[in-house]
Amino acid sequence: MIKVVFLGFGNVNSHLFNALHEKTEVSIVQVFNRNFIKMISPFESISFTDDISKIKEADIYIIGIPDDAISSFSESLQFQNKFVVHTSGGAAMNVLSSKNRRGIFYPLQTFSKQRGVDFKEIPICIEAENSSDLELLEKLGKTISEKVIEISSEKKEKLHLAAVFVNNFTNHLYQIGSEILEKDNLPFDLLKPLIMETASKIENLSPEEAQTGPAKRNDKKTIEKHLNLLPEGPHKKLYALFTEQLNQKYGKKL
Amino acid sequence: MIKVVFLGFGNVNSHLFNALHEKTEVSIVQVFNRNFIKMISPFESISFTDDISKIKEADIYIIGIPDDAISSFSESLQFQNKFVVHTSGGAAMNVLSSKNRRGIFYPLQTFSKQRGVDFKEIPICIEAENSSDLELLEKLGKTISEKVIEISSEKKEKLHLAAVFVNNFTNHLYQIGSEILEKDNLPFDLLKPLIMETASKIENLSPEEAQTGPAKRNDKKTIEKHLNLLPEGPHKKLYALFTEQLNQKYGKKL
Repeated sequence: MIKVVFLGFGNVNSHLFNALHEKTEVSIVQVFNRNFIKMISPFESISFTDDISKIKEADIYIIGIPDDAISSFSESLQFQNKFVVHTSGGAAMNVLSSKNRRGIFYPLQTFSKQRGVDFKEIPICIEAENSSDLELLEKLGKTISEKVIEISSEKKEKLHLAAVFVNNFTNHLYQIGSEILEKDNLPFDLLKPLIMETASKIENLSPEEAQTGPAKRNDKKTIEKHLNLLPEGPHKKLYALFTEQLNQKYGKKL
Repeated sequence: MIKVVFLGFGNVNSHLFNALHEKTEVSIVQVFNRNFIKMISPFESISFTDDISKIKEADIYIIGIPDDAISSFSESLQFQNKFVVHTSGGAAMNVLSSKNRRGIFYPLQTFSKQRGVDFKEIPICIEAENSSDLELLEKLGKTISEKVIEISSEKKEKLHLAAVFVNNFTNHLYQIGSEILEKDNLPFDLLKPLIMETASKIENLSPEEAQTGPAKRNDKKTIEKHLNLLPEGPHKKLYALFTEQLNQKYGKKL
C-alpha cells in the first residue's frame, strides 16, 4: 500500500484524488487544503484538514498548488526527510524545499473541474532525487496510467512549453473561431467536427502532412479576403503572423 | 437517382466520390480531371475523362479545383443552363460562370489524401440560385450527412475564416509543439493525449471555460521562462502575441 497525502486540492490534485482513491495499491491518508471550507468530501474515511501542523504520516506527499506558491509552501511544512513531490509542468524539482526528499509527479494533461479525465493514456512524467523514490513514483503512476516516464526537470520544461502551444494556444484559436461565428449568429457547433478531425488527424499523420489551407498554398486572394474580414486588432495580427509562418514553411511561390 | 459528374479530382472531390459512389440515391456518371494520368480508377463502371468536350449529362456538376481556377474553368465548360456547384469554403457562389445555374456544396472539414473521413457528422453548407436546385443539393447532402445547412456566400466566408483559425492555425501549433520536442529527442506522441483532450473538452465546455495555462492566470515567472527557452524567431513572436491576448482577455492582475 502506498500511503498518499494530498497537499492542496485544486484541479490537478482533485482529479488525481478521484483516480487514486479506489486503487487497492493506494491509500489516501489525508487531504490538506487551506480553504477547507471549499471541500465537500463524500469520502468519510479520508481525513481532511486545513491545519498544517496536523498533516499525517505518508509515503508520498503530493503538492498541487499554483507554481509560484510551491517554494514557500514546501518550506513551511513542519516535517523533514519525507518524500514530497509537486505536480506542476512549469516548475522544476528544485523549487521544492530541500529539507525533504524531492520529486515530480506531472500528469501531462489539461484539467478542468467540470470534466472527468481518464488517466490511462495520460503520460505521467516523474523525477526524483534517489532511485528508491523514483521507483515508488513509478509504482504510483502505474496504478492509473500506462505511460509513466522518467524525465528531467530540464526536459519537462520543454514539454510544458510545447503543451502550452498545443493546448492553451489551440484553445484560444477555438475561442477566436467561436467569436467570429457569434457575430454572424452562426452556432459554434458547426466547427466541432472540424476541430475533432484536426486533432484526430495527427494520430496517423505528422502535422506537416496534415497541414492544409490558404496560407500553405499561398492563396493570396483568400488571404487578402480574410484579412479584410477581420477588424484591426489582435485576431488580425494572429492571422497575419500565422500566414507569414505557414507561407515561409511551405513556401509555394505563385 | 441524382446524376453527378465530378469536375476535378483533388482532395475534396475524391473524398466526396468515395462517400457518394455507393449511395443508391446517387449515380456518379463521370469524373473529369485534367491530369487523367493521375487517376487510377478501381470503378470500372464509371467513366473517366480528361477531355472537356466529352463531359456527360448530369443533374449536378461538382467542381473541386483550386479556388483561383474555379472562375475561368467554369467559363470554359462547353454547356449551358446546367446546375454547376463548387465545393470551396473560400470562394463565393458568384465566382462561377453565370452561363450555368450556380450553387455551392461545401463540406466543412479538412481533407487529406491519406486519411478517410466519415461524412455523417460533417456540416455540408449549401447555397443555390433557385429553390429547386437548393432542394436537389439538400437531397444530395442528406445521402451522406445529417447536417446539411443552407448558408449564404457571405456567411460562408466567415465560417471559412473561423475554420482557418481552428484547423490550419491549430495544426501549425501542433507542428511547433513537435519541433520543440524534437530538439530534445522527446517523442511527439507524448502530446497526443493532450491534443485529443483539448479538442474533446469543447464538446461540453465553451472555449472560455476550457482555457487554462500560465497566460490565463498571468503567471509571469513561467511566461518569462518560456520566452527564454524560445530562440528569437517566429515561435517566440507567436508565444508573445498569444500570451498578450490571453492576458488581456482573462486579465487576472497579480
